Order: sequence, then structure tokens, then C-alpha cells
Amino acid sequence: MSPANSALPSIAISTGDPAGVGPELSLRVIEKVLSICRPVLFADVRVLSAVAERLDLVLPPTVLLEELASQSNAVVVDVPNIELAQFEPGVVNAYTGRASYDYVTQAIDACVAGSVAGMVTGPINKDAFNAGGIAYPGHTEILQDRTNAPRICMMLTSKEITCSVVTAHVGLDEVPSLLSQQRVLDAIELSHEALTRVRGHAARMVVCGLNPHAGEGGLFGNREEETIIQPAVDQAKASGIDVVGPLPADTAFIPSIREKTDGYICMYHDQGLIPLKALAFDNAVNVTLGLPIVRTSVDHGTALDLAWKGTANVSSFVEAVELAVKLCKS
Amino acid sequence: MSPANSALPSIAISTGDPAGVGPELSLRVIEKVLSICRPVLFADVRVLSAVAERLDLVLPPTVLLEELASQSNAVVVDVPNIELAQFEPGVVNAYTGRASYDYVTQAIDACVAGSVAGMVTGPINKDAFNAGGIAYPGHTEILQDRTNAPRICMMLTSKEITCSVVTAHVGLDEVPSLLSQQRVLDAIELSHEALTRVRGHAARMVVCGLNPHAGEGGLFGNREEETIIQPAVDQAKASGIDVVGPLPADTAFIPSIREKTDGYICMYHDQGLIPLKALAFDNAVNVTLGLPIVRTSVDHGTALDLAWKGTANVSSFVEAVELAVKLCKS
Repeated sequence: MSPANSALPSIAISTGDPAGVGPELSLRVIEKVLSICRPVLFADVRVLSAVAERLDLVLPPTVLLEELASQSNAVVVDVPNIELAQFEPGVVNAYTGRASYDYVTQAIDACVAGSVAGMVTGPINKDAFNAGGIAYPGHTEILQDRTNAPRICMMLTSKEITCSVVTAHVGLDEVPSLLSQQRVLDAIELSHEALTRVRGHAARMVVCGLNPHAGEGGLFGNREEETIIQPAVDQAKASGIDVVGPLPADTAFIPSIREKTDGYICMYHDQGLIPLKALAFDNAVNVTLGLPIVRTSVDHGTALDLAWKGTANVSSFVEAVELAVKLCKS
Repeated sequence: MSPANSALPSIAISTGDPAGVGPELSLRVIEKVLSICRPVLFADVRVLSAVAERLDLVLPPTVLLEELASQSNAVVVDVPNIELAQFEPGVVNAYTGRASYDYVTQAIDACVAGSVAGMVTGPINKDAFNAGGIAYPGHTEILQDRTNAPRICMMLTSKEITCSVVTAHVGLDEVPSLLSQQRVLDAIELSHEALTRVRGHAARMVVCGLNPHAGEGGLFGNREEETIIQPAVDQAKASGIDVVGPLPADTAFIPSIREKTDGYICMYHDQGLIPLKALAFDNAVNVTLGLPIVRTSVDHGTALDLAWKGTANVSSFVEAVELAVKLCKS
């Protein structure tokens, strides 16, 4: 065991739905991140073993949670919860849904207990969750519930652009009523704090308006820009945050503004995720801000058509691990 | 007069607010489009003359509307409505607002009368319109009113991406209630027809959902995808249009879908204009579909800080003229 390696942060990886691309990406990401962290894969070893054999990948040794502290390389924490006969690659079902949920919760618990420094989540599948009776719509809600976090914020980050959303998985008609000065301020503060850590300089933030042309002085919408967003921006500024806005969302993402902006605060899901995915379709990372633990995630799904084929793109997974390490360090 | 030139379509250019970049761009665009059309500038000749002198640009001869048919080169139709002493470059006022409105209405009337084949609008300024007592929020509403068009649709097009919007200048909270199967269908049909003409092949259309993840099967929103958008898509398909959707808006604009898509149908202003401006910030063209006349426009404003300096980017203007010519030809 080299002292250099044991000084690296250990990063839990919940390997995602067994029937998706998560298991193979979890194994393939290891060699790409071993110089910056000690990956700890949470999975049923039988699944990982089968994937490793099929795709000729290296399977790390299995250890117990209590043994983690003494490890210096990649390891697996076995979560024996699914038989190979209970599913086939590319087809999710109740078994794969429940299994993937267990990997997430055990990784969260390991983070909270301090057994690992942070976690990266592989892709889960909503249909599998439904089939398995797991009521959560996604990781974020599991994380918030299990860590009792009072305020959280979803941030998607990439080389090209970073966007946080004030509201996320709600109907478009609910967005205006869900906005509040405090929620906008929370998103600004949480994103600014995280990005400042990641970038190594005081992050420069841009806040988008809600309505076309940021309301055009009250012409469109109900003055949400003047009564909710602007006061939050002013409050953030008063606390020393470098932030401008609310800007009209359509011109906020043009190159000349992007290059001066570390992070965008968007009022709703698609306002942030449209430019993010249009500009950074394969290297974005999803971060849940406001949790007592560090958590990042790949920004793609289970990609069932590619499962267990060894062809899925590992770059988002690599970026997710790299970002988790950066967030752990500070 | 060369027979080749006289066979080219004549394109009216409303030169925009005198205090903005419109006059100089109108003059500078001429040499770049003379091989494809005969530009007809609608402007106060005193304004154009002063700009031409200041920036050493060529001022075309002035002709009467009745003389247009016999022209083979660029000309100006004089609309004497503002004294040089009544404004200064970079500062809009009531005079520049009213003047720019006249250029637009006279160009529309020339189109309707058949004196020109189509029109391109230079940038107007909303503050100037307000100051001048012009109640219209923009060109589109003037065009619809003056031509009595029953259904129109705003389409923004560029080399990279083309987006039409079902709703435009309204508050975000109004969007869901303004959607209807007929409005979505209108946007699909009008966009498909125009793009098929421009591209020279049956245009492939993508329709976006309204809610995150296109509603995720009713989880987010009020099933607008199932009850409004999907029926419109099905109706368009039944009439032979190559169209898919509703797709989740955040992944609809990733490169692999963009490259297979001629035009996107977006439910609201920023859903279409965010990806358009993020990807095509300086060459997009605005087209009003559904009018009895051809009308395109630059996709930028009066850029008052650049006015009369000769440094404004003319590429969007060139693209707007080129597109108008293509739309006239078919």
C-alpha cells in the first residue's frame, strides 16, 4: 500500500441499474480516476463479475465497509441483492430497480458515516423503480430525504456551461408560483459556494429572468423579475457575491456572456437543461448542492440499448468522479 | 439594364430606426446580395445620405415606387419623415420611432401591392416606438394587422438550428392556457411548408413537449403533451408531414437530433430562442410565417452603442435577405 494512494479521497460509486450501462461504466471509470481517488463500487459482485467477464474488464477485490479505511486501491463493497437469473442486460425490471436503489442508499449511508469522502451515482431507471415499488422520482429526492437536507439545488456542470435550477421536476404551469426570493437566493448561494470551490476563484454568476425578455419591464408575466428575482440578486450582491441579472434567458447563453460566467441560475428545468445539453451533450455532471455529503452523478440514463456492450461513453462518469474529488478536497 | 438583373426578385428593406445600426447595415448589405436580388431601401434619403457620407458607403439612386419595375439595381424609395437635427446616432426618440414605423408600413404596402417580391426588416427600437406613440410591441404584430393574416408563426432560422414558437411574447404563466391543438398544428404546418421550400426537400420536424421530460407520462404538468401536442403531431403526420414528438425539450437539441432535424416546434419563446441564440448568436434570421407576403428580419436590435460606426456585424442582415429571396422564389 503506497502512502500516496491512501491519502487520496475515497469515492463511493453506486453502480446503477444492473440492466443498464452503469455496471460496465463503473468498472471502466476506475483506471481513469485511480490517480485522483480510491473508487469504492457499491454493487452486487455477481453482476460486476459477469460484466467484467463479458467485456474483459478488471474486477477489483471485494472488501467489507469496515475495511475501507485501510484500502489504497479500487474496491467493491458487495450488496448481494440480485441473481443473474433475475434479469437480462437491456431489460429493466422490479429486481434491477430495487437493487439499484439499495446501491444508492448504502453509498449515502457510507458517506454520512464518513466511511467514504463523497459519492457518484450511476444511472438508475424510473421504469425499474416503478416496477420495484420505489416511489422516488430520482436520486435527488432520495438524497434529500435520507440526509434530511433543508435546502437543496440541482446543478448541472460541464466544461462549456454550468446551470443550476430553482425549480426542477414540476409542470411548467407550477413554476411561477414556486419561485420565491429565498429559493432564488438559495440557488445563487449554494451554486456560488460550490463553483468557487471547484474553480478556485470567486465564481461569477448570472441569473436568468422567468419571462421572455426578462419580462420587458412588466410587459410579459407578473413582474416576477422585479418582485422576486431582482431582490434575491440584490441580496446576494450585498453579501459579496459577483452576480448579475435577471437577464433575458434567450440572450443570457450567447458566447460572449458564457465566457464571462461560471454559473447560471435558471428558474426552471428546461431553461437550464436546454442550453446545457445543447452545448455539453456528453460530458455534463449533475451535482446535488445543499446536502451534508458530496454527491455528483452522470448526466445520462441507463442507455438500455447499449447495456453490457462496452461501447457506452464513459466521459460523463469520469467528469462526475473528478468533480466529486474537487468538491471533497476543499 | 442587364436582363439577368431585372429577372432577380426585388426585396424591400425597411431600414429600421435611424438612430440604430439599421441604416448603415441596409447600405452595407447591398453589395453582398446584389447577385441574388434587387434591394429596395425604404428610408428617409437624408438619413441614408448622412450615414453613407460618414462611413464612405455607396448611396443608391432614389426612385419612385411606380418606377421600381424598371430598375435593375439597388434603389432607395424616399420616405421623408425625419430631419437630421431631430435625432443623433445612438439615441432613439419619438421621431426615430415614428420614422422607423413608416418604413415598415410602406414596405408592407409595397409587398401587398406587388411592387416588390418580399421584404426584410431592419431593427426597430421598442423605447423609440413607445416614445413615438406606436403601440405595437414589434414587427410581427404590425405585419399581422396590416395584412389581416389569420394565423401566423414566428420562426427563427440559422445554419445551426431553426425554431418556431407556438406562443411568443407572453408571460410564462400564460403559456399552458394559450396552447391548443390547432395552434400547435398551425406552427407545424406553416414551418414545414416554409422549410420545405427553403431546403428543397421535405422538411423533418421535431416538436418539443411543454413540461420537463415532456411531462414524463403525466407526472409533471397537466398532460398537455397527451391532450394537446400529441394530437397535433398525429394530425400533421396523417397529412404526410415528417414530424416526431413531443420530445423532452432538454434532449431535443442535442447534436445527434439536431443533425436530423430541419425545424423545431417550440411551445414558448425561450424554449426556442435559448438554443437558437446559444448556437447561432450572429447569423439567425427571423421569419414571420402565415403572412400573405414574404417577410424576414435580422435577429438583433438597434445596437445603439454601435450605431453609425460601421462596425456592426452585417451577417444576420445578409442571411435575412438570402432567406427572403429563397422564400420568394418558390
